[in-house]
Amino acid sequence: MPTPFDQFLNTTRTISDLEAANAVLSWDQETNMPPAASEGRAEQLATLSGVAHRMRTAPDYTGLLHDLRSDGSGLEEWQRAAVRETSRDIERASKLPERHVSTLARESALAHDAWKRARAASDFSLFRNNLRALVELKRQEAELVGYGAHPYDALLDIFEPGMTVSTLRPIFERLLDGTRKLLGTIRESGVTVDASMLHRTFDPDRQLKFAHETVAALGFDFNAGRVDLAAHPFCTSFGIRDVRLTTRIYPDDLRSCLFGLIHEAGHGMYEQGFDSKLARTPLASGISMGIHESQSLFWENMIGRSHEFWSWAYPRLRATFPEQLADVDLESFYRAVNMVEPSYIRVEADELTYNLHIMLRFEIETGLIDGSVEVDEVPELWNRRTEEYLGITPENDAVGCLQDIHWSFAGFGYFPSYTLGKLYAAMLREAIVKDLPDVSAQIESGDFGAILGWLREKLHRWGRQKSASEVIGEICGATLSERPFLDYNARKIARVYQTMP
Amino acid sequence: MPTPFDQFLNTTRTISDLEAANAVLSWDQETNMPPAASEGRAEQLATLSGVAHRMRTAPDYTGLLHDLRSDGSGLEEWQRAAVRETSRDIERASKLPERHVSTLARESALAHDAWKRARAASDFSLFRNNLRALVELKRQEAELVGYGAHPYDALLDIFEPGMTVSTLRPIFERLLDGTRKLLGTIRESGVTVDASMLHRTFDPDRQLKFAHETVAALGFDFNAGRVDLAAHPFCTSFGIRDVRLTTRIYPDDLRSCLFGLIHEAGHGMYEQGFDSKLARTPLASGISMGIHESQSLFWENMIGRSHEFWSWAYPRLRATFPEQLADVDLESFYRAVNMVEPSYIRVEADELTYNLHIMLRFEIETGLIDGSVEVDEVPELWNRRTEEYLGITPENDAVGCLQDIHWSFAGFGYFPSYTLGKLYAAMLREAIVKDLPDVSAQIESGDFGAILGWLREKLHRWGRQKSASEVIGEICGATLSERPFLDYNARKIARVYQTMP
Repeated sequence: MPTPFDQFLNTTRTISDLEAANAVLSWDQETNMPPAASEGRAEQLATLSGVAHRMRTAPDYTGLLHDLRSDGSGLEEWQRAAVRETSRDIERASKLPERHVSTLARESALAHDAWKRARAASDFSLFRNNLRALVELKRQEAELVGYGAHPYDALLDIFEPGMTVSTLRPIFERLLDGTRKLLGTIRESGVTVDASMLHRTFDPDRQLKFAHETVAALGFDFNAGRVDLAAHPFCTSFGIRDVRLTTRIYPDDLRSCLFGLIHEAGHGMYEQGFDSKLARTPLASGISMGIHESQSLFWENMIGRSHEFWSWAYPRLRATFPEQLADVDLESFYRAVNMVEPSYIRVEADELTYNLHIMLRFEIETGLIDGSVEVDEVPELWNRRTEEYLGITPENDAVGCLQDIHWSFAGFGYFPSYTLGKLYAAMLREAIVKDLPDVSAQIESGDFGAILGWLREKLHRWGRQKSASEVIGEICGATLSERPFLDYNARKIARVYQTMP
Repeated sequence: MPTPFDQFLNTTRTISDLEAANAVLSWDQETNMPPAASEGRAEQLATLSGVAHRMRTAPDYTGLLHDLRSDGSGLEEWQRAAVRETSRDIERASKLPERHVSTLARESALAHDAWKRARAASDFSLFRNNLRALVELKRQEAELVGYGAHPYDALLDIFEPGMTVSTLRPIFERLLDGTRKLLGTIRESGVTVDASMLHRTFDPDRQLKFAHETVAALGFDFNAGRVDLAAHPFCTSFGIRDVRLTTRIYPDDLRSCLFGLIHEAGHGMYEQGFDSKLARTPLASGISMGIHESQSLFWENMIGRSHEFWSWAYPRLRATFPEQLADVDLESFYRAVNMVEPSYIRVEADELTYNLHIMLRFEIETGLIDGSVEVDEVPELWNRRTEEYLGITPENDAVGCLQDIHWSFAGFGYFPSYTLGKLYAAMLREAIVKDLPDVSAQIESGDFGAILGWLREKLHRWGRQKSASEVIGEICGATLSERPFLDYNARKIARVYQTMP
């Protein structure tokens, strides 16, 4: 006779397998699927989601889960965590009437099409009514789900469990202040960085081979993963032993393929690092979007744009592109990939100014959700804040408030994850430097094993067993802070812009 | 309120989508999956099959199906066919106790491993006990499912519904007789064909590009399909608008990639040709393995090895490989790809002697299932029949009775499909030549539209709505016969071996 936990686990694994199948079909859609297959694939994805949803909400299963939550005696810690996290996923879903979910799905599909047209025409008015409908639905959702101080908390919670506006606001204010100071330092330095060599012509096959070899050296396990090309870089996982990355290649921008793949490999190494006993449960997953993003950004920026890394990697890159890089020395290259320059487009922003893009979105999103900002005001507010934070004004809405896909799928609450990822990454970096005194020398010799081992041990293996604040507290002995990120940037800017730190 | 048929269709489509997802995961396993993912993938595939099985056997669904079978009034013809074919699939499954299915799955997994070891060691004794267990299970299965005159009929029926030993035996006897006469003609001609030019060194990328262009010209729709590389060529479909082919490339054998891909494209064009109203039902499927194989063999052999085809294709091939084919004219090339030569290995056999491989397997399989042949006798019987039919004796069991994968997965009853495919293809070819008087000139000018249009109209669009004997009867005005196949071969041999037909 199987125990209640075994019965729970059995269904949980079935649901997890259906979700993995869904992920395979979505991956195939982005990498391989022929164009005429779209309609059939949409049906297949809807079917898999529907079957999983019915299993997840079946009374037998929710009853078992309820009993196991009330009496977890005799369960191991990871088993209690599996019950808790599964309940968390289901409880939120159970608060949303099916009508709300289907209306949101329909409105999002419409909004996504409208957004594409609006962006192409650079005309916010083509998206305005759709955005208004989505904002209204997400405001309703916040009421249905419930929240403490601010309705936006109910949306933040989807991506960063436990995070609130009242926690984020003071951190973002200090981060804004610190960022402005650093931008002032750069301006005052009078130094300009030449990044033009990154835009020479680089053979795509060689770019891809170099990027492959690099992420293999960092520790991405190609025995349990692979890389394909797609229009937008992403990482998806079908299980701990099957993690797929994608990248894209621009012949005239050396950064896109390499840093894009390091970024996705950061996500991928996290997914490959979960304890195997968590397989096929909700615990085999990142703690939050912020923590997930911390892993991609740690590898992309704190490793992949470090001087130590390029001391090791640059001779290899130069051997790969001997003609293009003949006149470029290590220092010039290092400075080029760390250039700080305000720009309109979030996804093209540098490490430091990126957060300014997030802050303006956070301000607009919280305002839309609490009703203090009207949809009609968005373009003007967007442009005003861009001017204020970045010192530049978008030429039009296509490179302004229509640039991101997120609102078109009602992804309110997602943007802060990017900045949280940067702050967590810098906190983790400090802890690593403390725990691994030889880390600089290791990176300079292309040895990343100790770093990955440290991340595995402290963070990856736990999956979703611990919360973000628990794991960051244990590792860093601190709560979320902007300080390590600003310190790290101050040192890097001093080196790149030859100022005193 | 949905009608009973709508309710039936709804669940049928859900099951079909789960099976499509299963096919995507299997395709990915063969083409892309990293090695460490095997175990997780096996779980996912088992889960999808299990969920589909539970839906297919749920009382609500089987009850609906039963009611719709009893009273199909008000249903269109395709709807009645959908009910009939769905019932057929379920009825067979319902006769097999779960215990039988799981034992067979377990024994097959063990047998597959044992077969791989036995073939590597060329030692039948390593596979004997596994084969005995599978034969016993399939004998039990025949009893559970029921049959008319011969227990093998119950297994044939899986792959070729309605086919029986008593139908096949006399056809196979006449086919054997006719094949021997044709082999005698070849021997007496004293002509030898030189095929050595096919084994020069051919760049893999160019081979693949040529094969791609060729199947696109034949009519495979790359808007609704694609080609990948895999260890074994296959065709799989995730829906009418998403058909995937694979091929493999040998630098020293020009035939494998090209003819392999034409073969799979023949399967693929069938799958792309089903009427779209049949989508996501069991009707969007080939009538039988024999009919499916007729489509691959028609395009591979009757088109792809025809003189008319090479009149069009050879200049292109020569332009692709100018050095390798500089000294080879069209006639020499045409004769090389149509050389008849007895060999040990079925999958490498020519068009004519291939059936002899099938006949010896058919004799052994029917004997094993009716008890007139013991497992221990297999190697000796195999070698004796190879000697008798092909005039050669296998050097060892690896190139003898251990060469095929089929028995290792208990695929008894499958082999006759290959010969049925050849016979159906030749019958269809006769009908096409009659209906399309300009067909030779069309092929010579690289125009295959009328041929594909004819197949679509007469055969493809129906899917599984009609049986093999119905559709062949309607198209050819005849029942299954070896005569068109032998006539076709006699004419080709006369041309290749310069004998009088």
